[in-house]
Amino acid sequence: MKYKIGVVDTTFARVDMAKFALEELSILKGVEIVRRTVPGIKDLAIECRRVLDSGADICIALGWVGGAKIDTQCAHEASMGIQQAKLLANKHILEAFVFEFEADSDRALAEIAKDRARKHALNAYRLVSDPASLSKRAGMGIRQGKGDAGPLK
Amino acid sequence: MKYKIGVVDTTFARVDMAKFALEELSILKGVEIVRRTVPGIKDLAIECRRVLDSGADICIALGWVGGAKIDTQCAHEASMGIQQAKLLANKHILEAFVFEFEADSDRALAEIAKDRARKHALNAYRLVSDPASLSKRAGMGIRQGKGDAGPLK
Amino acid sequence: MKYKIGVVDTTFARVDMAKFALEELSILKGVEIVRRTVPGIKDLAIECRRVLDSGADICIALGWVGGAKIDTQCAHEASMGIQQAKLLANKHILEAFVFEFEADSDRALAEIAKDRARKHALNAYRLVSDPASLSKRAGMGIRQGKGDAGPLK
Amino acid sequence: MKYKIGVVDTTFARVDMAKFALEELSILKGVEIVRRTVPGIKDLAIECRRVLDSGADICIALGWVGGAKIDTQCAHEASMGIQQAKLLANKHILEAFVFEFEADSDRALAEIAKDRARKHALNAYRLVSDPASLSKRAGMGIRQGKGDAGPLK
Amino acid sequence: MKYKIGVVDTTFARVDMAKFALEELSILKGVEIVRRTVPGIKDLAIECRRVLDSGADICIALGWVGGAKIDTQCAHEASMGIQQAKLLANKHILEAFVFEFEADSDRALAEIAKDRARKHALNAYRLVSDPASLSKRAGMGIRQGKGDAGPLK
Repeated sequence: MKYKIGVVDTTFARVDMAKFALEELSILKGVEIVRRTVPGIKDLAIECRRVLDSGADICIALGWVGGAKIDTQCAHEASMGIQQAKLLANKHILEAFVFEFEADSDRALAEIAKDRARKHALNAYRLVSDPASLSKRAGMGIRQGKGDAGPLK
Repeated sequence: MKYKIGVVDTTFARVDMAKFALEELSILKGVEIVRRTVPGIKDLAIECRRVLDSGADICIALGWVGGAKIDTQCAHEASMGIQQAKLLANKHILEAFVFEFEADSDRALAEIAKDRARKHALNAYRLVSDPASLSKRAGMGIRQGKGDAGPLK
Repeated sequence: MKYKIGVVDTTFARVDMAKFALEELSILKGVEIVRRTVPGIKDLAIECRRVLDSGADICIALGWVGGAKIDTQCAHEASMGIQQAKLLANKHILEAFVFEFEADSDRALAEIAKDRARKHALNAYRLVSDPASLSKRAGMGIRQGKGDAGPLK
Repeated sequence: MKYKIGVVDTTFARVDMAKFALEELSILKGVEIVRRTVPGIKDLAIECRRVLDSGADICIALGWVGGAKIDTQCAHEASMGIQQAKLLANKHILEAFVFEFEADSDRALAEIAKDRARKHALNAYRLVSDPASLSKRAGMGIRQGKGDAGPLK
Repeated sequence: MKYKIGVVDTTFARVDMAKFALEELSILKGVEIVRRTVPGIKDLAIECRRVLDSGADICIALGWVGGAKIDTQCAHEASMGIQQAKLLANKHILEAFVFEFEADSDRALAEIAKDRARKHALNAYRLVSDPASLSKRAGMGIRQGKGDAGPLK
């Protein structure tokens, strides 16, 4: 069994998020990668849809959001496009966006990007190879980009 | 008569909301469950649509929204996707989202999650088994997640 | 000639808005009613679409919006769904939403609900039975839920 | 050659904007008008789409937005519906909305409404009769509702 | 091999952005231009879609956003329409919008417009002629309208 996974990132990003996603996927069994890069987050939805329509089973949309207020509006537009792209392609697109306001230092921001890209790559694999495995983790406060929040006590 | 009800939740949630929805549905006559789990709220719309397209009569989307300002924007995107998913599948998806800002303590938050999941599970059953029963409760200030507000006096 | 008019309301509402809409429609010639009730405003779009697809000529979506800030976001999502539902069904859905922030007292709020439901019921009838009658009132500052603002002088 | 132009306005508006649009169009060669009126701005998208689907080449959506904060949200929903309506009909809908916050006096507001309706009527005619004429005015800071801003120096 | 590139701008803009995009494209091999102008940013989505449907491989949407708060909402609506237009046409539309709040002086604003139009014209060419070239620049903090932010260190 082969799982075709699309990895789409941007030239806008300040961290090579795809590198981490690809590292994670490279050690998993039966994975075939489709790699694409677009200028910015607003270009992710259509590119993911094209990748899914051409045969990928799932896509990861790796995005980077600047620190100005208008950038958060752009992220919203990008996310809304991704919601529509999923529904039109009838497949999942996992959105892994990093917002510059999430951390104060470059190092911390890079760590978030790395962790989020890796974990969502794994989530993508789970969704196409063994979706039931996710139900075992339901309600567990799992996070990407930082440590898990865990279930409420 | 069998009613096929989809229950879709997330690994992001900090309460196992599906457990309560499933408990509620388990005592109702003629219910068949389709259970799915996705990483986060933005993944609910497409998963619900897939469940509906594969034969479920209705879906419950159980979501958990973090306490940061950006999380509320994410919830908005998730909800907009769910609006579209319903219209594309031409069936209902009941959205049961818990926002962390709704309560100050973990215990209170867990109670909201439990109550909302249970009541929306029952609403889903009513919508597919006896929709007219809802009209008897029209305008009565019914709430999920807390006690009813009741009709204005 | 028969006009099939859908009236869809919610159990969330604190006023039985459908009662007023139905009273208004009951005295009009050639009206056939399709009545449905859903849990909350986010469920209106899909229910209206189903009613329209099953043969209704127009729908009235009677909604009630809570007073918390997040409720206004929910109303926005509900309205966006209704915009899409109209375009997919290719028919009108008149949105009659009451926001709790519109009045300070229960009595005033109930009056708004009553007036808005009645007037939009009449608007629905006009749109399907005699659309040209609306052009005679174009630009006249007509309001639902309160007295008309009237044209600028 | 005949250009079929839809003019859709509302009973909510406090100025008869259609009158000005129609005056403007009446002196242009080969114009056939389709006139419709709906209750409010949220009803414009579906009405314009119906007009376009029944053969109009382009539509003007004349809207009036109240001065309360929620009215601006309603305008947003109306505009989003219009965006979708254009894409579904595959034709232009020129949106001419007047916001009450745009001016302090009734007279000034009426002037905005008149100017915007007239100029967008002319824009509609240009788009269907001679689209290349617009490229001659590209980047010129053209405005509707007030005087042109002009190009940056 | 010929690449058909749509360049769509507005009469609202205060800088002739298309001029810069066209200059950039004129020196590239195998480019055929389709030029269109619409009144404002909300008209870009449908025009781009029409250009793409009539055979263009990609479009550049050159927009100008005024400095008032409502203008940012209009830009949001325009962007959402463009997201949908891409998904319906199944092709890229690169959005090059300039917001008046981005700079204090006319000169600085004009520089942003020029730089953004030029660079997105080049991005459009890359996407249709050599998409793999973009992956070499992934995560490099590339910007349009100003100097590159560069990758995090």
